[in-house]
Amino acid sequence: MTTFQVASPLIAIAQKTRQAATKLAISSTDTKNQAIEAIAQALELAKDEILQANLADCQAAAEVIPQPLYKRLQLDEHKLRDAIAGVRDVGKLADPVGKIQIHRELDTGLILKRITCALGVLGIIFEARPEAAIQIVSLAIKSGNGVILKCGKEAVRSCEAIVKAIKQGLSQTAVNPDAVQLLTTREETRELLNLDKYVDLIIPRGSNSFVRFVQENTRIPVLGHADGICHFYIDKMADMDKAVDITVDAKAQYPAVCNAIETLLVHQSTAAKFLPKVAQALQECHVELRGDTRTLAILPNIVAATAIDWETEYSDYILSIKIVDSLEDAIAHINDYGSRHTDAIVTEDATAVETFFGTVNSANVFHNCSTRFADGFRYGFGAEVGISTQQMPPRGPVGLEGLVTYKYQMTGNGHIVASYTGANAKAFTHQDFV
Amino acid sequence: MTTFQVASPLIAIAQKTRQAATKLAISSTDTKNQAIEAIAQALELAKDEILQANLADCQAAAEVIPQPLYKRLQLDEHKLRDAIAGVRDVGKLADPVGKIQIHRELDTGLILKRITCALGVLGIIFEARPEAAIQIVSLAIKSGNGVILKCGKEAVRSCEAIVKAIKQGLSQTAVNPDAVQLLTTREETRELLNLDKYVDLIIPRGSNSFVRFVQENTRIPVLGHADGICHFYIDKMADMDKAVDITVDAKAQYPAVCNAIETLLVHQSTAAKFLPKVAQALQECHVELRGDTRTLAILPNIVAATAIDWETEYSDYILSIKIVDSLEDAIAHINDYGSRHTDAIVTEDATAVETFFGTVNSANVFHNCSTRFADGFRYGFGAEVGISTQQMPPRGPVGLEGLVTYKYQMTGNGHIVASYTGANAKAFTHQDFV
Repeated sequence: MTTFQVASPLIAIAQKTRQAATKLAISSTDTKNQAIEAIAQALELAKDEILQANLADCQAAAEVIPQPLYKRLQLDEHKLRDAIAGVRDVGKLADPVGKIQIHRELDTGLILKRITCALGVLGIIFEARPEAAIQIVSLAIKSGNGVILKCGKEAVRSCEAIVKAIKQGLSQTAVNPDAVQLLTTREETRELLNLDKYVDLIIPRGSNSFVRFVQENTRIPVLGHADGICHFYIDKMADMDKAVDITVDAKAQYPAVCNAIETLLVHQSTAAKFLPKVAQALQECHVELRGDTRTLAILPNIVAATAIDWETEYSDYILSIKIVDSLEDAIAHINDYGSRHTDAIVTEDATAVETFFGTVNSANVFHNCSTRFADGFRYGFGAEVGISTQQMPPRGPVGLEGLVTYKYQMTGNGHIVASYTGANAKAFTHQDFV
Repeated sequence: MTTFQVASPLIAIAQKTRQAATKLAISSTDTKNQAIEAIAQALELAKDEILQANLADCQAAAEVIPQPLYKRLQLDEHKLRDAIAGVRDVGKLADPVGKIQIHRELDTGLILKRITCALGVLGIIFEARPEAAIQIVSLAIKSGNGVILKCGKEAVRSCEAIVKAIKQGLSQTAVNPDAVQLLTTREETRELLNLDKYVDLIIPRGSNSFVRFVQENTRIPVLGHADGICHFYIDKMADMDKAVDITVDAKAQYPAVCNAIETLLVHQSTAAKFLPKVAQALQECHVELRGDTRTLAILPNIVAATAIDWETEYSDYILSIKIVDSLEDAIAHINDYGSRHTDAIVTEDATAVETFFGTVNSANVFHNCSTRFADGFRYGFGAEVGISTQQMPPRGPVGLEGLVTYKYQMTGNGHIVASYTGANAKAFTHQDFV
């Protein structure tokens, strides 16, 4: 027994993670890629153990959790193989660390560089989907960061088996297995959010209310978004056929995701022609429509929308519809009720596009295409760590660049500031190297 | 009398500011530059009124505030002329808005751009220095942002005269004077920090404790730093002459600023030779030295440092000194006690530099030059809106780029996601335009 107060076990874990992360941060691309390949091989070796652990999780959860959650929890051989292939894909991505963003001579022999570097330690909180742990760890290693994972309680056995294999894999490499940690209890989530001295970024993956809880209960920066209330505005100059096709895609192709639309705004001069067409197409896809008073005058058989509809992310086959008098009214509605995620205009009028792009305050503003394109993979980022709806960068779909920061590195040869001040002040040259 | 509850007057002000800012955000560079020139001219015209208001502020404050604060409050003709010249300098800076960061074809006719845009509304809280209002407004206009200023109570008359002139100037231009607002009471500061729906970035300028108060009492992103506890590490391979000169510059050239050093870490093998030399040079500049036990063995006449010294920003002619056994110990001390601002190594050993640059977790890491170079103007940014010690970008000295964010803009021609999924999925081309 020690006579000193024992520190929180989570602080000890965080310190170990940071220590391992400090070394990982300056590891070469080769070292990190070798670690990623070792993880892939260790997961292949542990395949049976992982699948058995998942079976136990599923059996325990079967009676307790709803069907969609159960499906996410399930990890079959096929899903696991895909996840391991995903690990190797991350190995092939460009190293986000060590990129020189500024390289400037301030004066002869005084050279400034701004260079990307790892953030430090990531705290990633996810719910039932166990293969998320695999993807997250590979992204963390590639970006030179330590990672503290917190999984949902339903997935504990699966995640323990996965992280055991990952640590086993890392133990064969130059990357310290302490760089990856797994937490499993709800109390630890709360404690993790308080570790602003040890954790540099929190990425919550889960329900809107869970993400909002995280945002409101930590001083650590949070990458993500609570809501995805996306809008489509059908302008008076819209091409009707494009408008119908894109609306159906943006709502019904996959309604459960954050970049699907929840509200359709229609210019009053196109409403009579457009609404019956789009209603038929959407109803064929089993989409329930809810309209404001003017919409009901054209589509009398749909449900009446109430104030709450304009601020609801249905994540389901439901769409609210409102008729607006002008482009400006549509933009005002979007900026009032939207979540700064993704909003689109359908029009053939270039001036309207310019106004929409300039004044809709969202991370993604689209013209004549589906909001569903708002995605890191579709943007060509190779990986997506999340979609951020904050105002400051990183904003929108965030790839590996969201897991790095930068440092200013300056080298001189005895340079002092006194030489550049006062009566005989030297001037800076400020020449960029190209 | 209205029968409705009147909303907080600050919300009404914030809404007016946002409305004006939305238009300012999409103004051309010419429009913004004309507004900046109009501000400069209006300030010249209102010169007498501003100087008289400042005289009244100074008379009211003379008995109440300490001498250094009084000096900051004073605005003479010379200071005002410099501030107006500064406005015109901002006019000459490159427009930070509208820069294309990504320009990519996702598929034929489906074009993605990532483009910089204004943040929205800035909340800037500053203390006694009235000319700060002039600089801030010109930076806000140049970056297309609205700005709500809150000045210290000592400077209210001066700032009211300045903002009156600025609004008068703007009223002659295409920029709505509502884009610039001034708050003057302490209650309003608290209320401003709660306006996370209306204000996109807070920049506090003031004492460490004030900045910390702001950071801890708002959900709005804060740009700045509370502490500037900068270190100098004198390695075993240090050149003695450079080490002495740079140490004196970093401590004594201007000790009140955040990039001056507070602690000197000296490798044990150089201490006996280096410490007497540097002590003499520093004492000639009236710097008080405080040393750990081993330092006192070499410099017996200086004060003993206590634990609190390692975490104190003196902002004064005081320097703490500690002898360390290795580069690793120096780095550990810096990462423990530093404020992630600016830390430097003096050495002729390239490997030590690499380790120091890689593992010191600070925004600015320097080699063989003074920490005092950590500054937006010296880095060649033209203007500095603050120095950030957060881990995520923007980090370190922040120029106009800290006042902008970006948006993804995508244009298609009826493109839908369904075409890129399933059995006959089209592939993305992901070609960058050059």
